[in-house]
Formats: sequence, C-alpha cells, structure tokens
Amino acid sequence: MPSRRELANAIRVLSMDAVQKANSGHPGAPMGMADIAEVLWNDYMDHNPANPKWPGRDRFVLSNGHGSMLVYSLLHLTGYDLPIEELKNFRQLHSKTPGHPEYGYAPGVETTTGPLGQGITNAVGMALAERTLAGQFNRPGHTIVDNYTYVFLGDGCLMEGISHEACSLAGSMKLGKLIAFYDDNNISIDGEVRGEHGVPGWFMDDTPKRFEAYGWHVIPVVDGHDADAVKAAIEEARSVTDKPSIICCQTTIGWGSPNKQGKEDCHGAALGEDECALVRVTIGWPHEAFEVPKEIYEGWDANDSGAKKEAEWNEAFEKYRSEYPELAAEFERRVAGDLPNDWQEKANAFIAEVNSKAENIASRKASQNTLNGFGPVLPELLGGSADLAGSNLTIWSGCKDVNAPGHDGNYVYYGVREFGMSAMMNGEALYGGFIPYGATFEMFSEYARNALRMAALMKIRNIFVYTHDSIGLGEDGPTHQPVEQTATLRMIPNMAVWRPCDAVESAVSWKSAIERVDGPSTLIFSRQGLPHIERSQDQIDAITRGGYVLRDCDGQADAIIIATGSEVDLAVKAAEQLTAKGKKIRVVSMPSTNVFDAQDQSYRDSVLPPAVTQRVSVEAGCTDGWWKYVGSNGKVVGLDHFGESAPAGELFKEFGFTVDNVVANVEAVL
Amino acid sequence: MPSRRELANAIRVLSMDAVQKANSGHPGAPMGMADIAEVLWNDYMDHNPANPKWPGRDRFVLSNGHGSMLVYSLLHLTGYDLPIEELKNFRQLHSKTPGHPEYGYAPGVETTTGPLGQGITNAVGMALAERTLAGQFNRPGHTIVDNYTYVFLGDGCLMEGISHEACSLAGSMKLGKLIAFYDDNNISIDGEVRGEHGVPGWFMDDTPKRFEAYGWHVIPVVDGHDADAVKAAIEEARSVTDKPSIICCQTTIGWGSPNKQGKEDCHGAALGEDECALVRVTIGWPHEAFEVPKEIYEGWDANDSGAKKEAEWNEAFEKYRSEYPELAAEFERRVAGDLPNDWQEKANAFIAEVNSKAENIASRKASQNTLNGFGPVLPELLGGSADLAGSNLTIWSGCKDVNAPGHDGNYVYYGVREFGMSAMMNGEALYGGFIPYGATFEMFSEYARNALRMAALMKIRNIFVYTHDSIGLGEDGPTHQPVEQTATLRMIPNMAVWRPCDAVESAVSWKSAIERVDGPSTLIFSRQGLPHIERSQDQIDAITRGGYVLRDCDGQADAIIIATGSEVDLAVKAAEQLTAKGKKIRVVSMPSTNVFDAQDQSYRDSVLPPAVTQRVSVEAGCTDGWWKYVGSNGKVVGLDHFGESAPAGELFKEFGFTVDNVVANVEAVL
Repeated sequence: MPSRRELANAIRVLSMDAVQKANSGHPGAPMGMADIAEVLWNDYMDHNPANPKWPGRDRFVLSNGHGSMLVYSLLHLTGYDLPIEELKNFRQLHSKTPGHPEYGYAPGVETTTGPLGQGITNAVGMALAERTLAGQFNRPGHTIVDNYTYVFLGDGCLMEGISHEACSLAGSMKLGKLIAFYDDNNISIDGEVRGEHGVPGWFMDDTPKRFEAYGWHVIPVVDGHDADAVKAAIEEARSVTDKPSIICCQTTIGWGSPNKQGKEDCHGAALGEDECALVRVTIGWPHEAFEVPKEIYEGWDANDSGAKKEAEWNEAFEKYRSEYPELAAEFERRVAGDLPNDWQEKANAFIAEVNSKAENIASRKASQNTLNGFGPVLPELLGGSADLAGSNLTIWSGCKDVNAPGHDGNYVYYGVREFGMSAMMNGEALYGGFIPYGATFEMFSEYARNALRMAALMKIRNIFVYTHDSIGLGEDGPTHQPVEQTATLRMIPNMAVWRPCDAVESAVSWKSAIERVDGPSTLIFSRQGLPHIERSQDQIDAITRGGYVLRDCDGQADAIIIATGSEVDLAVKAAEQLTAKGKKIRVVSMPSTNVFDAQDQSYRDSVLPPAVTQRVSVEAGCTDGWWKYVGSNGKVVGLDHFGESAPAGELFKEFGFTVDNVVANVEAVL
Repeated sequence: MPSRRELANAIRVLSMDAVQKANSGHPGAPMGMADIAEVLWNDYMDHNPANPKWPGRDRFVLSNGHGSMLVYSLLHLTGYDLPIEELKNFRQLHSKTPGHPEYGYAPGVETTTGPLGQGITNAVGMALAERTLAGQFNRPGHTIVDNYTYVFLGDGCLMEGISHEACSLAGSMKLGKLIAFYDDNNISIDGEVRGEHGVPGWFMDDTPKRFEAYGWHVIPVVDGHDADAVKAAIEEARSVTDKPSIICCQTTIGWGSPNKQGKEDCHGAALGEDECALVRVTIGWPHEAFEVPKEIYEGWDANDSGAKKEAEWNEAFEKYRSEYPELAAEFERRVAGDLPNDWQEKANAFIAEVNSKAENIASRKASQNTLNGFGPVLPELLGGSADLAGSNLTIWSGCKDVNAPGHDGNYVYYGVREFGMSAMMNGEALYGGFIPYGATFEMFSEYARNALRMAALMKIRNIFVYTHDSIGLGEDGPTHQPVEQTATLRMIPNMAVWRPCDAVESAVSWKSAIERVDGPSTLIFSRQGLPHIERSQDQIDAITRGGYVLRDCDGQADAIIIATGSEVDLAVKAAEQLTAKGKKIRVVSMPSTNVFDAQDQSYRDSVLPPAVTQRVSVEAGCTDGWWKYVGSNGKVVGLDHFGESAPAGELFKEFGFTVDNVVANVEAVL
C-alpha cells in the first residue's frame, strides 16, 4: 500500500507534467495542496465516480480554480470518466480539461471556477441549498439530504471582496456543514503577500481573526503537508455543526520543486523540463510523465467505496419512499429540475387572469403578483434580495426565512451583498433542487456582473431580478439610474434578458425564465406604474418569442416603432397620433432582444419585414445596440448620457421620452 | 451660544424638512449621525468654505451617500456657497442638491457617493494620495501636505465586499490619517441586521474584531449621541498615526423622531408632516421649515476659522517656495492638474521613436514601453495592478512602491482587489496631484465596473488599463477571455475606450488618456504579439480622432473594412488579397469608437463616406455595437458566444478570425 505522501505525489507529478506538456498553466497550487486533498478525498469525501450526479455526494469546490490540475488529477485517480488522455490534452481545444475547471466538461467538476472568490461563494450557496433541502425533505428517522460542502481557497480568494460578502453571510447563517481549507502559502502573483525587508505587503490580514469576526469555527494553524494534522483538523471541523469551519493550512507553493517551491515563479507557468526532472528526484517518483503505477491507482480508486455509499443512500431513500411516497417523488422531481405536472396549466391560467384584470401597475409590482401566482406551484423557488425586499418586491405570501427554525424556508435575506448573492445563487442552482431568484436595483447588477456571466457560461437556471430600470426611478439620481445596464446585460452570451412593458409581459417573462433549462434569465422591472396594454391571445402567446407585433396597420407599414418596457406605451400613443395623420404604423414590442434574435429568420422577418426600412426604436437607455434593428435608414430614441436627480416625469420630458418626440422621429424617417 | 445638541439639531430638521418637501429621500442617517458630524466639523475639520479647493483641507466623505442631506446641511451651515434655496430644491432638476451627493454639483462635495462601499474606498485612495504627495513634496521643517481623511459609513458599506478590499489594504498600508466613523445603528432596509426573535439576521459580524484583523486601530464602542465621547474618540484616533482608525459609533437611526427612530421606516422615506411636527416638539426646535436662527448659523460658521487656516497654510507655503521654488511650482502644477511644459514635445518625440522602431510586440508590452517613455516626464503618474504586475506590464523603470520608506513612491501593489483598486484610483484622482492608472485582465474589469462608471460620472482623469483582451489570451479559457467586455465598456457614458492595434496606436492612446481632462479612459491591450503597421505622419496624427483611414484605394472604395486592435492586421491582409483581385478597398482602424463618435460629421463622413454602404467590421468580440457603423448592407465579423481553452492561434482559426473569412465576408457584401 503506498504511503499518503506517495498518493499525494501522484497529484503533484500529474499536475506538473500536464502543465509542462501544455506549456501553460498553474503547477504551484496543486503541488502545494496535494497533501490536504489526499486526506480529504481518501478519508472523507462521499462520492461515487460512476455517478457524478448522485444527490447524496459531498460537494467539492476548488475556489482557486487556476489550480485546475488538482481537481483533474483527483477525478482521474479516483476513477471518474476522465482518462489519462484528457490529462495529456490539458488546455487543448475540445478536451475535457480546460485551463480552469469548467462545469459540464469533466465529470465531477461541480462549478466553474477561476474568477477568484466566486468558488467559495458558490460553496456557501451549495451549503445553504443543502441545509434548506434537508429542512424541506428530511423527516424524523429519514436523513435523505446530508452532505458536506468542502472548498479550497487561496490568498487571492480571500483578498477579493466577494469572499467577505459570502463568508460574513455564511457565518450569520451558521452553515455548519461548510468546511473551507485556506491554502496559506504567503505567495500571490506579485510576490510575498506579507511583504519583504520591512516593507508591508498587500495582504497582511489576520485571517483567523477575520473569520472569528464572522462567527466561523476557526482552526488557525495546520501544517498543510502533515496528513495527520490535516486529518485531525477535518475531524474537528466536522464536529462543530453550528458554524462553518475554516482550516488555515500553511503550505509551500510548488512543494517538491527544489528550485521553485515557495516562490511566485511556480504559480502560473510550467516548471520547465529540467525542474520537472529534479522534482522526480526530490520526491522519489521514478515514473515517466502520465505513467501512474497500479498500486497508486488502487490507493486512490473510489469506485467500490463510492458504489457502496450510493447503495446505502439508495436503500435509505427507498425506506423514505415507502413511508413518504409523495415526498420521495417530489424530491426526485426537484433534483431532476423538472417542473410540476400542472405547471403549464396553472401558469397559463394565471397569465390569463392577469390579462383579464388589466391592471395599471409598476412592473415590479406585477413581478410580485406573479410570484404570488406561481409561488404556490413552485416549492423549488428560493428567493431573495440584497437588502431591498420592499423595493424589489421579492417577498410573496408563501415566503419563509431560510434561517427560521426548521431551516425549511424559501427566502434569503442576503444583506447588501449583490455579488455575493448572485454567486451564491449559482451555487444553489448547481446544488440542485432549487430555482433561485435574487434581486437588487438594476444599477447594482454591475456589482454582480461577473456572477451573471458565470451563470450564463455554466448554462444554469437562475433568475436575476432587477427593478428601478431607468431614469424612471427619479430622485435617487444618476448613481442609481440605469442608462447602459440593460444593453450591457443583453450582451452577456447565453443570457436571456427581459424588459416587459406591463403586467402581462411581466408574467410571461417569469414563465419563460422558469422554463428555460439551458441558461439564466434577467428580468428587468420598472419602479413606476405602467399601463396595461390590450392584446389578443395570439399576441400573448407571441410574447415568448421575445418580439412581436403589438399594433398593426392594413397592408405594408410606412414605419415600424420598436419599443421595450416603459417606452412601449409611448410607442403605442405615437402610433395612434401618426395613424390619425394618415400614416400606417406598426408597433413592435420587444421585451427580449436575445430571445427574438434566436427565432428563425422567417419569424423575425414577419415581425420586422425587410421591405420596411423606416424604423424607430424607443428605449430609455443607451443606443448602440438598436442600430441592428432599425438599420441605416432608422432612428434610435435613447439616452447616451447620465441621468439626473429629479421626479421621473420631469426626467422623461427633459430627455425626450415623449409622444411628441417619438412622433417627430418617425416623421423624420418617413 | 447654542449647545452642541442644538447645533446638531439644525442638521436634523434641515434634513427631515428637505426630504419632506421633496417627498423623497433618506432622513434616518442624517438624524442619526448629526451629533457625530457636529463634533467633527466644529472641532476638527480643517476647511475653508470660501475656497472648497484649498489643497490643505481635510477631506470628508459620506460613504453612506443616501444620507446626502447630512452633507448638504453641513455645507450650508458652515458657509459654503449653498444657499437655503438649494436645500429647498433637494432632489429637483438642475438643483445643486441631487438625491445623492454628486461631485461637481454642490461645492465641498469631495466625491459622488451612493453606490455603497465605494465612498470608504475613495477615502482610502485619498488617504494614500495624501501620504504619497506628502512624501514627494514635504521637506524637513516644511509640512505642506498634511491633512486627515474622514469618512462616515454605515452597515451597508460594511456588508459590501469592496469595504473588505479597501479596509484590508488600508490596514496593510498603515494609513494613519484615515479616520472612519461607523454608524452602527443595527438597521438596514430589510430591518434589524442582527436578527430578531432568535432568528439570525444578515449582518452578525463582530466589526471591531474584523478591523483589528485588518490591522486598524479600533475604538469599539462609542455613544454616537454623546458629544464628549465622540470628541474623546476623535482625539484618540488622531493620536494613533501608524494605523487607520475606525470609531464604532452606536447610534439611533432617525434620532429625535418619536415614532420612527430606531426603525427601518425612517431610512428611506419622508417622515410625514405629522411626524416632522412631533420631531420639532421632541427635540425642542420651534422654528419653521428651512428657518435657522442666527445664533445657530453663528455657531456653525466656519468662514473666519477657515480663512485663518488657509492663510496660515499660505504663509507656510510661501516659506516653502522661498526655500524650494522649483518644488513649489511643481506642487502647484501637480495640484492644478496641468501637464509639464515639455510634455507635448517629449510625448510626440517618443511616438515618433516608436514609429521608427517598428516593433512587432504585444500591445501590453507597447504599453509598458510607453510608460517607460512617458513616466520620466510625468511624476504625477500613480500606477498599480491588482496582483498582475508581470502580466499587465504596469511597472516601468522609475516605479517605487508607495509603501517603501519615505512614502514617496508611485506604484501601488493593490493585491487581488479589482473593485477596490478602481475606486481607490477615483479617490486618488479626486485628492489631486496624481494621474492614477491601474490594471488587471480585461475580464476582471467586470469586478470593478461600477467604479469605472463613477469615474465617468465624476468626469475625473483616471486610466484603467486592461490586458489579455480577447480569445487571444488562449489557454486560460472562457472565464478569462473577453467577449462582450470591450463593447460594454464602450457603453459607459463619458468613458473613452481605446483598443490599439500596434505599438504606435498604443502610445497615442496613452497620450490621449493623459491629456483628457473631462473624464476617464480605458486602455485595452493584447496578450499576444501584434505586427507594426506602417503609417504616414498624417495618419499618426489622425489616431487621436479615434478612427481613421489606414489603407486606401484610388477613388471611391468598393468596400470598407473597419477593425480594431489585433484584428486590424487581418483587415489589412484581407484588403491586400481583395486588391489583388481587383477590388477597391479602404481599411479603417478604429481604436476608439467613443472618440470617433465625438468627431464632427464631416470628419466621420470623410472616413466612412455615406455613399459606401458595403462595409465589414472585424473585432474578436460581440457584434451588437458594430451595426451602427456597417449599416443594413454590412456584415459584422465578431463573436457572440463564449470562448474555449486552447492556444490562441487555434482559437482565432476556430472562430473565424482569418484573412480568408474576412475576405469572404467582404465579397458577400460586394
């Protein structure tokens, strides 16, 4: 039986050699954390390489994702479907082993990491999801949901602000089954973080004290190369169940590299052939690159233990099923991400009801009404707001705080933590069993922006809710008034952005977001009231296509007005004036440009006939994106400068969002 | 002489009444912090209402900017040019008193705040700028630069991740003249932050311990309504000069409002006429709204004391001038923001030299070369990187760590803190005397995005440097490969974004950014090598116009290819192939769409003649923004999906960035 150190050295050489072969990558972190990973994975991780989606598995997140070869090595060695050829193809096109761990590429990668600080935040979301799913499904004598979330993180993650947001909230929430391992190696890309020669460095925090301040259970000093010490620390961490734990592991970056360990040189570049050879000598690893001895594989193989663990869980689940058949079926539905059988029927009935009510309300209020309509059908909704519940209107009648006794709630008070909220939502969605939604003012989507991009990259179902969507928010002024935000959100690949114009479009946008299975959605709502727009059933059905004809004329239009959100009403009124003047005007409502763009050409041409090049778009936001739709002959009524602090009505007038100005622009293109 | 409490009450009623009149705003924070503000402003703040730009003044930042009426009240009462009519016009169009404090509106507002956490971060930047300017200019016996930076902040600021980035770094840097006042009132918009009825809230941090972990001097418990206690705390804070100080003030939000104090109700809405009347009774303020008794004004008036302080400083400065005439002149130049007299000559000579060298190098390397060229002429440069110095190439030969002994350096190791870096840069620029630049990978502009917007909103000169600008970064993969980032950065109003194509355009973009006095610039550079492009002197001069004709044909072109950055070379080569096939092709290089858009119509038409509608744009990024330039007959060669992890050359080929594909697209429009 190989020693623990020999098992860990397999990670070191695979990592070093894969980086060397690619001549690109980060050997330092995997070599530094190999001993910790060995103890955790061989002695504690509940997982089954044959079924990476087994719901009972422990979650493992590598927040310092540049050390991707650590996780690829672990997955390969423990028996996942990640053959050695994939490790040889590290960082190559169409491999399963991209430079950073990408969700959906290698089996067993629980989340995409690399952008620092988001991995630990995903992990906080996973731990919250675990506790909440447990609260909702476990029953006395039946513990179906019960897993740990383990996360590795480095100095970079701890410098990033998002780590404060996530770890502060995790402490407040007392997430006892979250265990973090801090790779405390004193090195970041620029050098020694604590400084040299008496000159302070850039990261002098007393991290144990910081985490104590958050209410964590802190194990302040562990030798990250001493397996016994690591094991004792994990035992201690698991024994404390009312606080998240952080194990501060002192490690040497690039451990085993005689000339480069402990230095920033080994952080982000191949060691070089010569140094790789020296590592082999230093650590006593005589094997060729990508050659792993059989006994090392046997020491790592988790197939048998994993199959056994999953079988035990399956047995327990069958007992649960026999006592709680409906709950068991519901658990399976939730984890599969399927919607309830009666979803379509109830959702459509609600939309019909909204249409018949014909209310003139702010779309943020329409959003809340929709949550009240859909919420009772969807126990998988896990909502929240970044300290703006009363403004975002994210609380519906069935909401219960996830921190309340029983931990079976469905609403998260995220505090003033937009980025933390959004990356936690990613973790909640990845954990499974939930459709997260979280809200803030649209402006502060900017604080969270890269988490939205990560959701889109991972193709996960997440719903980002943004209210106060334009100068229409009024007196709070330019720091709070979106100008470019809607346009820039639309540019995130694979993000479906909706800016509905009334209560009906608001309900349909929620339904589309809930039904979308291959990516996140962003729902953008107004602060101010919006009038109900009359529609036929065909038009209601067409909302899901992102853009549709809302008002039409006989025969070919003289001009088309395209509008979104609060400006659709302006477009309709301008069309009425122009019609009265004898012009033939079509009005297109385009709540989602992304969804419209994804329709087939014939549908798009039916809405925007190529023959009609006299087009005007109207949106209280920046203009760049609209030329795609209005073309060279068109005009764009928009806003390319900052707003001002004043009542909303005055601002719309001041900045040209009036019926008269829309009419004038249409007349100018005619 | 009125009592301290009476003076503080003037803030309370002005704030409450202005919010009431606007029927919009945040009375709770000003009413809660009035007593603290009274002690600080009347006993400690060095400032001169008659000259808000006096360089020797203490800086005051209201990080919880929603409490804007606090600062407007202070400025009005102490004698700034902010008459009572402006307070009556709170939150109205064209007033000097917008909903949040906006830099450039009311005199004495040092920075725009509202987006939480950025104010404290600006303050950290100001304190660093003060220490650095002092290190550069003070001489034995001559302390010209010597002021405090005071900042008020609330729970929201402390929950935001950026507060971690800024305060951790401030602690590492030992910024002893930064003094923060934490308005610890246990209330945020969603309610009691520490929870109720045994259910944990969303902000349970032990904030004093957190700041101890950062290395701050912490005064953990002060009654924020006890002037003597506040005064003693300020004395203590000022006595500790090797650490920033935080004074944790326990306050009651909305103090003085009998029915609303201590509750979230008074945070963000007018109290109501009835409650305003009750406040008057409760605190003993019999005066009408906006009526301030003469003796209260006299108690606050800082004109005499301010004039005296400035006169003393002027006297000291004249003594400094007599001993160090050149340094004094240089100080005045720096603080005025003027460039050196020989700037134009030397900068142009450097650009000519770059052109004659004709090097084929990465534009990030060209950027570093430019820093080496410009740096010796510009001691006001204050550079840095978010832990990527060796990748961003931000260190030039004259760089010295600001933490090094003497504190007269010009380079900041910001650590992995993109948002913190960017908002600190805003504070450095606002302090005066510096042109900050700071760098990270372009992708992580997303972490910092709202600070860039704030720089643009404040119209300050700041230079954001982003390298690794496309799929051209290669193996690090989609988490690190910009796709939509360049396009979205261009959409920030008043941001000048440059994506140069070679070393010459790189140098010119730096020059433009340094010369821009009414807003920030973003410079985007490649990781990979880019070939030198031959140009005439007229073409070099035309780079500053944002877009110009780089290759032309005889007579009217059959087609125009517009490209930026690394894709300009593709465009030039495609034009050569097409020319060989007998087509007349113009190539336009457009390093800055924003700057090009700001040129007059006739120049723009000379570059992109309206008669030539056969146009193709080429940029390895998202396409939406390009339709504005290519029009309905055009084509956009771009990228609307995520990248992949692979060597850069393979990715360009995989995604269609080849000469053949550009040629094919041009042929398709012909």
